[in-house]
Amino acid sequence: MKSVYFDNAATTAPRPEVVEAMHAVLSEQFGNPSSTHTFGRSSKALIEGARKEIAKTLSCKPSEIIFTSGGTEADNCIIRSCVRDLGVRRIITSKIEHHAVLHAVDSMSEEYGVEVEYVALDSYGSVDYSSLESLLGLAGAKKTLVTLMHVNNEIGNLLDLQKVGRICETYGAYFHSDTVQSIGHYYLDLAQLPVHFLTAAAHKFHGPKGVGFMYIRSDCRVRSFIVGGAQERGLRAGTESIHDIVGLESAFKLAYRHLDSERSYVLSLKTAFVQGVKEHIPTAHFNGYSADLEKSTYTLVNLRIPIIGDKATMLLFHLDLHGIACSQGSACQSGSNKGSHVLNEIVTEEEKWMPSLRFSFSIFNTLEEVEYTIKVLKNFVKEV
Amino acid sequence: MKSVYFDNAATTAPRPEVVEAMHAVLSEQFGNPSSTHTFGRSSKALIEGARKEIAKTLSCKPSEIIFTSGGTEADNCIIRSCVRDLGVRRIITSKIEHHAVLHAVDSMSEEYGVEVEYVALDSYGSVDYSSLESLLGLAGAKKTLVTLMHVNNEIGNLLDLQKVGRICETYGAYFHSDTVQSIGHYYLDLAQLPVHFLTAAAHKFHGPKGVGFMYIRSDCRVRSFIVGGAQERGLRAGTESIHDIVGLESAFKLAYRHLDSERSYVLSLKTAFVQGVKEHIPTAHFNGYSADLEKSTYTLVNLRIPIIGDKATMLLFHLDLHGIACSQGSACQSGSNKGSHVLNEIVTEEEKWMPSLRFSFSIFNTLEEVEYTIKVLKNFVKEV
Repeated sequence: MKSVYFDNAATTAPRPEVVEAMHAVLSEQFGNPSSTHTFGRSSKALIEGARKEIAKTLSCKPSEIIFTSGGTEADNCIIRSCVRDLGVRRIITSKIEHHAVLHAVDSMSEEYGVEVEYVALDSYGSVDYSSLESLLGLAGAKKTLVTLMHVNNEIGNLLDLQKVGRICETYGAYFHSDTVQSIGHYYLDLAQLPVHFLTAAAHKFHGPKGVGFMYIRSDCRVRSFIVGGAQERGLRAGTESIHDIVGLESAFKLAYRHLDSERSYVLSLKTAFVQGVKEHIPTAHFNGYSADLEKSTYTLVNLRIPIIGDKATMLLFHLDLHGIACSQGSACQSGSNKGSHVLNEIVTEEEKWMPSLRFSFSIFNTLEEVEYTIKVLKNFVKEV
Repeated sequence: MKSVYFDNAATTAPRPEVVEAMHAVLSEQFGNPSSTHTFGRSSKALIEGARKEIAKTLSCKPSEIIFTSGGTEADNCIIRSCVRDLGVRRIITSKIEHHAVLHAVDSMSEEYGVEVEYVALDSYGSVDYSSLESLLGLAGAKKTLVTLMHVNNEIGNLLDLQKVGRICETYGAYFHSDTVQSIGHYYLDLAQLPVHFLTAAAHKFHGPKGVGFMYIRSDCRVRSFIVGGAQERGLRAGTESIHDIVGLESAFKLAYRHLDSERSYVLSLKTAFVQGVKEHIPTAHFNGYSADLEKSTYTLVNLRIPIIGDKATMLLFHLDLHGIACSQGSACQSGSNKGSHVLNEIVTEEEKWMPSLRFSFSIFNTLEEVEYTIKVLKNFVKEV
């Protein structure tokens, strides 16, 4: 049977080079980076090398990169720090952020009574920039954090980071962007991008799970979320996972070395997929801007398919039986029974009966896989 | 040059079987465990298999084992949960706990005004159980958490978990033990041990860094520390690091399969080390109970050496030059300039000028390494 993995927004396969780099560290380098002896120093050097590599590519200082156990921890840390350490009393976000952001924001509201506002979205799920400006205008003296993701993980809509950053600057607000779906896929130049905080997860760009990083601009004096030892200059306690950090570095380096050619390739798969759907499953709709190659990431599409009842329930299972892995709602919660909170915001009541599927692509996919998937999908929709 | 790694309490080398198990996962299994398709389900099965394996060995329920990014996160999570979710308003701990516990306790005092008490220690750094009882007797109606580590990471003193657990039971207090230095080295039978929370880190028992677990007794209804997706039954958000969890499982399984024989072997190294010191460096003192094979873990010794001035400063460097890695103070903070907070509690003012060294052993060490180290140490102490 064929095996087609079209769930790359949920997680990606590590590149073989990443796996080998990690294997070498696991086999040969085990010192605790906090130890001052030879074993410790060589582990420390690996971590600092990774930090410099990332900082160079993103045009920031190495000290602004803090390793974490992943994107979720990074989002939690930043949002909590803003409230606890930077005096933030108001958070502006959107209802279609990742749960790592939304639930962290909810905690701040519960624990600290922080005021929470949600920007308006257009009918495709993109942020209404004028709504953001009006909300910021109403902030008064309350220190505000704006947290809006760069690439939406379910529908792929892109945020204009530069524009949001400038607006935040004008109103003196902090700006955090969950860039978990964009780091490794888009160039980010922090020398000119007005953003205070970013978050990344290696497993979204062919690195290992369980490791990520935060960018914390040097003028933001925050404290640690996880406390204990003095690792990461006191900003993140816990013995560093060297093999995972080296895996992250390797994946990051390769992603940016090949970004242009790989983007073209993955975009060609998405383009073919969109074309295929339009041609062979004309009754399908695209959620958000996911069919718009300008307003949406090149890595995914999100489809709404007009089938009903048992057939709708069977859709994902049918694809799985045909060896096709994709996601219904967000992959990060596809095991749960709740509908996607993102689609709930943008799909009308009349359309909610239609099942939605996210197909997300990577360099390890092929055009043949796209064609095969369109065929399986078409036949399923056609059958009575 | 020789290369002797005697800093196994800071971190251990992963077993080759662990490295291979992780390599296989990294090469072949990358699905997101939250995804419902084939790729996701097989990753999920790996995690649930690891959970069952650990639960079986510790005689608890699989649902009581929650994977984390390590011991520090686990300690933070448990201590915060006790205060936020279980109504704890008073914490009893000791001044020689790991910083992951002490700093988490400090945060609870700052953020929630939780009252903090420290048990008295005897002059060797062991907990005075009657002091614990009197403190518990004074708690009044305030819900109390007792957090005391099983094996002290610097001096190796053992806590009587059974005894402390019974005392806590009598006074209706919650009991957390940081078992980071003991899981994988000691049998723990949770079917009869009266403890609510334990914490573990794989890299302390020849597993990978960046992964650990918490034991949370099923009657303790706590909430997540890191919030976001519904992973780990809602108790720890963030995509699970499958390769690290499989590495943890492999290390855990092997540690318990070979525990008796490996304990004998490591104990023979410690015994030889203690004998060697007594014979060849008779002016040296042992910190805590570390020379007492009953009251201290078999994995480490902590020495105080009567040398002064520049020579004292050079000690660790001298050993490193001879290829011997050990730790001055706690390895987890040996990169920092502060003295060990543990030794500060038990060493008298008159003894504080003497440098202290921790030597910690593992199955990968040899008797020859012990003899070599004693010789190097002896010659250094002897030289003018």
